[in-house]
Amino acid sequence: MSIAKFEDHCWKDIVTPEILETYTPYHRETYVGQRPALLAIDLYNIVYEGGLKEPHELVKTHKASCGVYAHNAIKPTQELFALARSLKIPIFYTTTETRKEVNPEKGRVAADAYEIRAEFKPQAGDIIIYKERASGFFGTPLVAHLTQKGIDSLIVCGESTSGCVRASSVDAYSLGYHVSIVEECVFDRSPLSHKVNLFDLHHKYADVMTLDETRESLKRERPRRQP
Amino acid sequence: MSIAKFEDHCWKDIVTPEILETYTPYHRETYVGQRPALLAIDLYNIVYEGGLKEPHELVKTHKASCGVYAHNAIKPTQELFALARSLKIPIFYTTTETRKEVNPEKGRVAADAYEIRAEFKPQAGDIIIYKERASGFFGTPLVAHLTQKGIDSLIVCGESTSGCVRASSVDAYSLGYHVSIVEECVFDRSPLSHKVNLFDLHHKYADVMTLDETRESLKRERPRRQP
Amino acid sequence: MSIAKFEDHCWKDIVTPEILETYTPYHRETYVGQRPALLAIDLYNIVYEGGLKEPHELVKTHKASCGVYAHNAIKPTQELFALARSLKIPIFYTTTETRKEVNPEKGRVAADAYEIRAEFKPQAGDIIIYKERASGFFGTPLVAHLTQKGIDSLIVCGESTSGCVRASSVDAYSLGYHVSIVEECVFDRSPLSHKVNLFDLHHKYADVMTLDETRESLKRERPRRQP
Amino acid sequence: MSIAKFEDHCWKDIVTPEILETYTPYHRETYVGQRPALLAIDLYNIVYEGGLKEPHELVKTHKASCGVYAHNAIKPTQELFALARSLKIPIFYTTTETRKEVNPEKGRVAADAYEIRAEFKPQAGDIIIYKERASGFFGTPLVAHLTQKGIDSLIVCGESTSGCVRASSVDAYSLGYHVSIVEECVFDRSPLSHKVNLFDLHHKYADVMTLDETRESLKRERPRRQP
Repeated sequence: MSIAKFEDHCWKDIVTPEILETYTPYHRETYVGQRPALLAIDLYNIVYEGGLKEPHELVKTHKASCGVYAHNAIKPTQELFALARSLKIPIFYTTTETRKEVNPEKGRVAADAYEIRAEFKPQAGDIIIYKERASGFFGTPLVAHLTQKGIDSLIVCGESTSGCVRASSVDAYSLGYHVSIVEECVFDRSPLSHKVNLFDLHHKYADVMTLDETRESLKRERPRRQP
Repeated sequence: MSIAKFEDHCWKDIVTPEILETYTPYHRETYVGQRPALLAIDLYNIVYEGGLKEPHELVKTHKASCGVYAHNAIKPTQELFALARSLKIPIFYTTTETRKEVNPEKGRVAADAYEIRAEFKPQAGDIIIYKERASGFFGTPLVAHLTQKGIDSLIVCGESTSGCVRASSVDAYSLGYHVSIVEECVFDRSPLSHKVNLFDLHHKYADVMTLDETRESLKRERPRRQP
Repeated sequence: MSIAKFEDHCWKDIVTPEILETYTPYHRETYVGQRPALLAIDLYNIVYEGGLKEPHELVKTHKASCGVYAHNAIKPTQELFALARSLKIPIFYTTTETRKEVNPEKGRVAADAYEIRAEFKPQAGDIIIYKERASGFFGTPLVAHLTQKGIDSLIVCGESTSGCVRASSVDAYSLGYHVSIVEECVFDRSPLSHKVNLFDLHHKYADVMTLDETRESLKRERPRRQP
Repeated sequence: MSIAKFEDHCWKDIVTPEILETYTPYHRETYVGQRPALLAIDLYNIVYEGGLKEPHELVKTHKASCGVYAHNAIKPTQELFALARSLKIPIFYTTTETRKEVNPEKGRVAADAYEIRAEFKPQAGDIIIYKERASGFFGTPLVAHLTQKGIDSLIVCGESTSGCVRASSVDAYSLGYHVSIVEECVFDRSPLSHKVNLFDLHHKYADVMTLDETRESLKRERPRRQP
């Protein structure tokens, strides 16, 4: 969260000193907002298919899989869920709308392809947002649920960094929410897109934070929730 | 459609001459747009429960029923569907979202309460929009579907006039669609709200047209659809 | 606010006992929410033009005027503004967007036609929302401002009841805000539409409250704002 | 437009063969839609300040400038405008909303900072969308204007690729529009973000096309506009 570590993230091996200089006016402290919800984006079965391989090795058999990047994020994401549940932070999941009559032209999918993976199984009271586009806000009532619960900020995890995570985070920022993205808990099929999208998000729309920074911020600023 | 008949609608027995005078600047020809879709709002089972009675007679047993007003609209609405299908006008239905995980705090409902009534049963290629609020546009991807199909106007039927019909029509107008509401095919629990809402809609947002006027407008301006 | 007075409003001389019976399931206590903003809708000059006359007497010279209904609402609306300012409740105004390049096809208007009337002059820190449609939410960033200020509810005044007040209130409800409408501070060109729209809003989307009830609710539930 | 040249774009020097393999399922022909509008994003004065230098050389004096990247895009963008005007394609500009009362907490800016640069000066009938966020669709009535004009697709130019161009293009895709982005006519302060965002957009949401490809597509599929 310290300004000194503002650029100490996964993109540091590919962003040039010149680009970093261009973005110095954006440096600031990062934090989790006062009344956050956890937004878990598209943690469904098909992105884990094929196991711990590189996505290009899986494209012929499991074209939606994030392979090793998905699997590497399981443990930190479980920790993030445990943290959120221990603090009674409301949890919202997004997944793909698959009801046939909603989009007759779309092909059929396997029944459990878009179910949330077992490690992150929704519990009573959690809310699932079914969506047809990248952003969890587009064509869904997510913003109404957040307003009704008094949410002012989001903690984001899930995939893909360059797809639904980015689109949802940009919309959340536009709608006036403070957005924190937990670095170890978001993933993508392309390491390049993963890094550059986190860089873009961090400098324009969101606070990219490690899981440790997220935990510290949540502890430091308690009590976080009004009754 | 002629200007002369602009106020020749169900509200004429309750709107005073003074109010009519106030609204004279709104007089215009009414019509159905060039590339319309049919929007059938909330034609689900529970609004027909209890049969052909007045809603106040049904409120203790079937509080969502529009009773006799719902049943009176069945035949003209069947004709409207037949007309739309014969012209290959795309058909969109709205109904209530009932998946428990989408809104855990909401009470459970009977399994078929919000299914579309048999007379208007959706057919292959029709699209159903599940919604949580009054407007078919709020928190749904309806606008995206309309854009993808090149729709520029809506023909509206269903219920209730003062609830979902009005909210959907106002949103459609705001979004830039020309809106036609078929008078015999919309209904409400309150005859007063029905009439005044149609009056409001006709003067601000939509063309309230009889089924005959709708049919004539559709015939007159063909060909209506591009390949 | 008591349930006993739930139907004790301006519509009681036109809504029949049968309709009231149909709507008994809606009875509840009314209130102002915990962190409200005041939403002052379209209190601009042209709705006051022509003075204290009936709108139908003004239609030929001032077709947008609400005449006597606009002028009758000035004093209670001033009191509502004073109340809101004394409690440091954020104030949002809506008015019509008039910049020519935003909508080249629209006709020109007098320079001050859509300025807020002097009695309600915006002060430093107030926010003005310029809009092109009825609802203060459509095509505007209003929802983002409300989220950033932690607003969970609205107190609505202005005009017209059957136009921008209704459209804004329905959208606010859909977005998850608790909506209170101050009866003496909303007005319309048509007394019939005024009454029926307030009836509809009260039973579906909002709490219609007198200015006294609004004041009492705001006092009773303090402290209302977090620092 | 040929599939063979699908990856023949500015990102080819930084995207690895493995990533390209992962994205092979996305290959397709690119094209401009049937009834396009030109969306010119944020072509305002301050992004050209300081002249033909690298952005990091300008950050201390002109932190919003895209420097040499902005200036390099001027000529192709002028050609794109000429092409659009010759085909009577409707032109929409976005720029930043600067009216003080709309966002009192924002700092003041120089009067002409957000005026459209002289080379692309809006002409009678063009529409300017004033916005407070990255996307030209967020908090603006852009979608209503597009619907009213029967637009089904966008041709996008402007800046920044990783900011307003991306956010607008993602929203346009979500809303159901076909989106073409003209490669020579979009720019960014960071060459890395520029390339990776175009890569992301091309594979998920839009057709990245050269100016020549855009011209050919527009010629090939005429007549494009209905009377």
